[in-house]
Amino acid sequence: MGIGDDAAVVRIGPWCLLAADTVVAGVHADLTLSGLDDLGWKAVAVNVSDIAAMGGTPAHLLVTVAGPPGTDLDLLYRGIGDAAQRWGCPVVGRDLVNAPVLVVTVAITGSLPGPPILRSGARAGDGIWVTGPLGLAAAGLRALKERGKGATGAAADAHRRPRPSVPAGLAARAAGASAMIDISDGLAADLGHLADASGVGLDLDAVPTAAGANQDDALTGGEDYVLAFTAADDGAVLTAFAALSRPIRIGTCLPDSGARLVLGRPFPSRRGWVHEWR
Amino acid sequence: MGIGDDAAVVRIGPWCLLAADTVVAGVHADLTLSGLDDLGWKAVAVNVSDIAAMGGTPAHLLVTVAGPPGTDLDLLYRGIGDAAQRWGCPVVGRDLVNAPVLVVTVAITGSLPGPPILRSGARAGDGIWVTGPLGLAAAGLRALKERGKGATGAAADAHRRPRPSVPAGLAARAAGASAMIDISDGLAADLGHLADASGVGLDLDAVPTAAGANQDDALTGGEDYVLAFTAADDGAVLTAFAALSRPIRIGTCLPDSGARLVLGRPFPSRRGWVHEWR
Repeated sequence: MGIGDDAAVVRIGPWCLLAADTVVAGVHADLTLSGLDDLGWKAVAVNVSDIAAMGGTPAHLLVTVAGPPGTDLDLLYRGIGDAAQRWGCPVVGRDLVNAPVLVVTVAITGSLPGPPILRSGARAGDGIWVTGPLGLAAAGLRALKERGKGATGAAADAHRRPRPSVPAGLAARAAGASAMIDISDGLAADLGHLADASGVGLDLDAVPTAAGANQDDALTGGEDYVLAFTAADDGAVLTAFAALSRPIRIGTCLPDSGARLVLGRPFPSRRGWVHEWR
Repeated sequence: MGIGDDAAVVRIGPWCLLAADTVVAGVHADLTLSGLDDLGWKAVAVNVSDIAAMGGTPAHLLVTVAGPPGTDLDLLYRGIGDAAQRWGCPVVGRDLVNAPVLVVTVAITGSLPGPPILRSGARAGDGIWVTGPLGLAAAGLRALKERGKGATGAAADAHRRPRPSVPAGLAARAAGASAMIDISDGLAADLGHLADASGVGLDLDAVPTAAGANQDDALTGGEDYVLAFTAADDGAVLTAFAALSRPIRIGTCLPDSGARLVLGRPFPSRRGWVHEWR
């Protein structure tokens, strides 16, 4: 049962993933560079990414919109609906209220085909992998700023319509991933969270950079929604990902939990994206 | 497992209730009349009310806060935490982002001890009940406007700290409730939703009014979070509620789905609270 009662009734469990993220117009999305449909898509995608990063499958969405009268809700909901359809997670509840600025919050449930893959499970000696090259969304934002809303191409698309990969998370699970996180705030910041939670150090010997992106984009740019994970067995990783695009081994977990090295140097001090509370 | 990973992992099901509601500072809460802790409490309470209105029990909360730097987050979270504790539903996930206005969204899960009690199950001939007198929150808002933030008493408290009753929803379930809804936007508006969903008419012969409230408060005031339900068997209702405060029979469902009568007259045209999108 879906929209229209006090709450939605869904079948799930016995274990269930829950997450929620908020997208604010002018903070997380510059509406002079992307559309309201893109904002709606992104609000769903960031939540799908959270579920993928636990090795789960998205199941249901709750969408709340606070915004000013005159907002093109049809366009916003079209982007939300497109994303819901892409990832097979229907919108089961909605709330719509007045506010002076557009704030879209999506909560998501996810099902788990096995134990959750936490940030805290990495062990010294584990390999570190990413499920794709990085920096494309940051390069896309730069392209949009330079060329305006009409900018086309993979980079601009990556910024406007991030595409987290649920199959990649499931493949990491099949590979015996010990820990996983999604790269939403930049590789350095998010791998730092994983290392902090796991009590391990990081020694990155590669920063795989998407075509059109530079190393800084890859290391500190945000919103790629690629997954990073750790695993003890390289062979199992390559086998599990055989049917998907090849994951990239970027380093090794160290026993010294204070170590944060990339290409032999300390992590950059500007660690990650700037959406956080300041 | 709770806060700190990409998603929370919770045990629930196989059936699960989901709801989400947003509270906007200046729209749903006048911060010159109530505190940030009250706003936090209310953001939880409105969601608890949605779960209670399905005959469920609140289980988990996801809290997202979008707001300007300088917001007293400790005070806000204190109110959220107090409410979470009162209703036994822990906060399992959080998101905090910058926005020019304070927007608090809470998503909630609920467990179901039996089938959900929908808005659509009322049948002609069913009695209509409310789980308490109405209008107290509207009277409280008036008191706060007249006497300012320092106003005390049950009415002001009812506005600042609404207290939906989960046991009342469970008692309605035990009584064989055929349909249920929470009175968040005024009795006339919300019973109208129930009647619309059920395809029945309404004949209200009583408008139980809280001490200090008038009939207009009771009929079109909002935010009481009392439950209204329909049931075929008056005896079962009185038995199920024996251990709680006595529910009040206020009318009967009619076969004519267009009928909306209160004390023999048509429903008031100003139907309910004014938080809705305009």
